[in-house]
Amino acid sequence: MRIVVVGASGTIGRPLCAELSKRHELITAARSGGDVSVDITSAKSIEQMYQKIGRVDACVCVAASGALDRFADLTESELLENMRGKFFGQINLVLIGQRYLADNGSFTLTTGIFADEAWPGVTGGAVISGGLHSFVLSAAIELPRGLRINAVSPTMVADSVEDFGHLFPGMEPVAMERLIRAYANCVEGGETGGIIRAYR
Amino acid sequence: MRIVVVGASGTIGRPLCAELSKRHELITAARSGGDVSVDITSAKSIEQMYQKIGRVDACVCVAASGALDRFADLTESELLENMRGKFFGQINLVLIGQRYLADNGSFTLTTGIFADEAWPGVTGGAVISGGLHSFVLSAAIELPRGLRINAVSPTMVADSVEDFGHLFPGMEPVAMERLIRAYANCVEGGETGGIIRAYR
Repeated sequence: MRIVVVGASGTIGRPLCAELSKRHELITAARSGGDVSVDITSAKSIEQMYQKIGRVDACVCVAASGALDRFADLTESELLENMRGKFFGQINLVLIGQRYLADNGSFTLTTGIFADEAWPGVTGGAVISGGLHSFVLSAAIELPRGLRINAVSPTMVADSVEDFGHLFPGMEPVAMERLIRAYANCVEGGETGGIIRAYR
Repeated sequence: MRIVVVGASGTIGRPLCAELSKRHELITAARSGGDVSVDITSAKSIEQMYQKIGRVDACVCVAASGALDRFADLTESELLENMRGKFFGQINLVLIGQRYLADNGSFTLTTGIFADEAWPGVTGGAVISGGLHSFVLSAAIELPRGLRINAVSPTMVADSVEDFGHLFPGMEPVAMERLIRAYANCVEGGETGGIIRAYR
């Protein structure tokens, strides 16, 4: 398959590309430094990426994350800003990409544990992931030409415990290998509308 | 209790007010025609509403709904527009209201079945309700002074089958009485972080 990996240079992106490249032709996309540049907060940039790379069989997005917030003084505009990349960016990869992917191609998005589990300081992360989960259910029945869509919902990855572990004491990390398998299954399997929760 | 009902003149609002007014002092809020006017797409209008009505023990929102959409040509801006009222409006009722409600007061929001079940033409409705479900989980652990928050997630109400039944053939409607009981339980009970799915 020809697969575009958006966020290829990130924490999950690097090992994911290492795994997928064993069996597939990869196009790496990132804000800078990939085969193709893309800023997923911009619909125009996403459209240009798809035009540049030509027909692909799969789009996997492991780019962008939700920022931390303080509920006591959180505002609508701060929340919306937080949603630009991971929420609207990933939705745009699908809404725009539905016209570019090859027949029976697939989208694999990244959500996160905060959709289902409350932790302090991540209200933005919660609505981003919760909204995306419902988007995936909906898109799965709407997409044309046999296109599939799934989401992998990670918890903190073991590789990030050093950086983020202090923020979420007691959160059990997931091994990178398990997460990478989840993404590979979404791309290489036949499921659609699936939310692969890597913490259950 | 003193309770503000936002969307008091709507399909659910009217019977809900009839029930709650048996035991509580109600303030009805609506775009027009209530005790107080409010446009929940405007943070400023919400702030003015809370300032005008004074201390309340509960805020129940049954206003706003998601519009239908066509996935094939849905855009980010159309989706965002759809989210203004029911999603950002209800979130603003909480983010702003956390400074106005009485200690141990409660918020009760309205979401919907499309968070959990895919139906054609309601991608906006899906992300609105899915995002709100995760917001409720998060807000429940963040809200100060013993404030509670819950959401009632209706399916199509029996009273609306004549208007909307043709759009969702096979969707089992919920009796208005069951829905009203769910709202009353959220206000008068002790739960927080609950999503009351009126279709399970």
